[in-house]
Amino acid sequence: MRDLDSLALRVRDNQLFILDQQLLPFEERWLRLESPQDTVAAIQALKIRGAPLIGVCAAISLALYSLQKVSGEKILQAARVLRAARPTAVNLMAAIDRMLKNDGAHEISPQHLQQTAEALFDEDVLLCEQMARHGVKLIAEGDRIVTHCNSGGLAAAGAGTALGVIIRAHEADLGIHVYVDETRPLFQGARLTAWELARHGIPHTLICDNMAASLMAAGKISKAFVGADRIAANGDFANKIGTYGLAVSAHHHCVPFYPVAPRTTLDLGCKSGKDIPIEQRNAQEVRGFSAAGGECVWAAVRSPVFNPAFDVTPAALISGLVTDAGYFSREQIETGCLRGLHA
Amino acid sequence: MRDLDSLALRVRDNQLFILDQQLLPFEERWLRLESPQDTVAAIQALKIRGAPLIGVCAAISLALYSLQKVSGEKILQAARVLRAARPTAVNLMAAIDRMLKNDGAHEISPQHLQQTAEALFDEDVLLCEQMARHGVKLIAEGDRIVTHCNSGGLAAAGAGTALGVIIRAHEADLGIHVYVDETRPLFQGARLTAWELARHGIPHTLICDNMAASLMAAGKISKAFVGADRIAANGDFANKIGTYGLAVSAHHHCVPFYPVAPRTTLDLGCKSGKDIPIEQRNAQEVRGFSAAGGECVWAAVRSPVFNPAFDVTPAALISGLVTDAGYFSREQIETGCLRGLHA
Repeated sequence: MRDLDSLALRVRDNQLFILDQQLLPFEERWLRLESPQDTVAAIQALKIRGAPLIGVCAAISLALYSLQKVSGEKILQAARVLRAARPTAVNLMAAIDRMLKNDGAHEISPQHLQQTAEALFDEDVLLCEQMARHGVKLIAEGDRIVTHCNSGGLAAAGAGTALGVIIRAHEADLGIHVYVDETRPLFQGARLTAWELARHGIPHTLICDNMAASLMAAGKISKAFVGADRIAANGDFANKIGTYGLAVSAHHHCVPFYPVAPRTTLDLGCKSGKDIPIEQRNAQEVRGFSAAGGECVWAAVRSPVFNPAFDVTPAALISGLVTDAGYFSREQIETGCLRGLHA
Repeated sequence: MRDLDSLALRVRDNQLFILDQQLLPFEERWLRLESPQDTVAAIQALKIRGAPLIGVCAAISLALYSLQKVSGEKILQAARVLRAARPTAVNLMAAIDRMLKNDGAHEISPQHLQQTAEALFDEDVLLCEQMARHGVKLIAEGDRIVTHCNSGGLAAAGAGTALGVIIRAHEADLGIHVYVDETRPLFQGARLTAWELARHGIPHTLICDNMAASLMAAGKISKAFVGADRIAANGDFANKIGTYGLAVSAHHHCVPFYPVAPRTTLDLGCKSGKDIPIEQRNAQEVRGFSAAGGECVWAAVRSPVFNPAFDVTPAALISGLVTDAGYFSREQIETGCLRGLHA
């Protein structure tokens, strides 16, 4: 397949490389993923992450696997394992399903897989561009924006979802300031979003997740933009744990709150947020920290832990949704407009 | 002075010892504080913490200093330094002011200082007992209680404030379960509260601060109890950063929210929360972790950080206040009843 280039994913001479996000912000090291198994392990260890990007990465991994002249059965098996690598972000499942759609042909050809993977990459870049174009219209001069987790170029093939909008606002010289939720337990805000913002020279302040509410009370936050891992037909959406609490605070302080996601994040099979499966992760992520930057623990190993990777924010708490197909207000979403929006 | 004993503070043969809270939950090591300077350093490094306990500790340190036959001027100087060790918790200032009240005598005698320090210790034990007695009446069988930071025996000479109430409910066989906010940035919940709850055999689950809202949405939290570092005349109160966000979530989900504090935490000199000074702490506390359990960083040193140690929760968000003098509902507090309550 042809060479591809993004902030955290590259294809060179039919080899797939990812920027190891567990080593950021301290080290920029590219890892080669030699097989679908490598890709699944990298996705589960969060070396590569972000709802749009893991979909694109899994598709490319499957396409490159097909070049090794493996049987159709082996390709289907690899597709199943890739599809199940993480349960919440729907882009992964949607990307693999599209790879396997063979339009009536008897066999899924390597050529079809390569072309589809390339198309998924190119489309994601375009989707990001369209989200940024629609989303930036919501940002006013001097806005002070809070964001949660990482939804930038490290989470997509293009410039990102929520962070893509924020970067566009900075490029448009709107004089914004970004408050970055550190995003416990895995610190994607502190490690990844702060790194991306610094790369772009965007003024920002890192905060603990529990500080956003008092900044809102002090009138220091004017808008909130976040990504999404899966959006139900009624507009409820799953995103990184802590998004819901931020939405509750934004609602209490009348701070407009916007999820940003491409149509590929919509799952009309979920009527509401109740239908979205939520991944539970290892307790050690809450009891301590282990990545580039060191290893440490702060809680005793006997401490029982609750560690959901995501939570669900009901559509009632959002001001509107930014998609590649345009901006939809909460009122529009309440009329069921998302049902007509699927990719 | 006479020997004294609490979970985190001891006096033996006129020597002051504290349990080093920076080493918990991994190591129980007692440190001797040989001078007021030692005490100030231990308070600032959070080796000893908790609004009631630092007041008692500073008073004892001053009393023991006076036994070294130092001049009255030196005692006043030490008192000033102790009083200023941390700016938000008012108990520290109130304790030192009471130590220096000499009732018309020309000199502050070592005997007066010892008796006052002993009285402050004994009174704090009694205050905790009274808060537990009043607070436990608010807890129903099977309550699932969220708490923030540490407000137990590690924060007071007695059983604690909010955690004292929770411990009493467990002793009364009410079958409670406690959700422990880890309490970023310094993890007092993960390190200290979980340790205290485990010591008492109280069922509990450690969560990241940003998870409480979704537990409330799922109906898994029925009440919230927290401590306080300073309470203004109108019932607004300062407590560990994150308390305000938790109160906003509790309000949104109709979960009753109770601060618990002795009258010594009241500061009628503050009309409202706006008058409470908020301590800003070192950015490295947000960028990484350093204590027993290891050292690590997750954010780049260039990341600008906001790190207030406390936030202010307005009285409008609480259900009522538990004090040693009884329980006061929000409606009672709104009539100004706290003005008649000062110690």
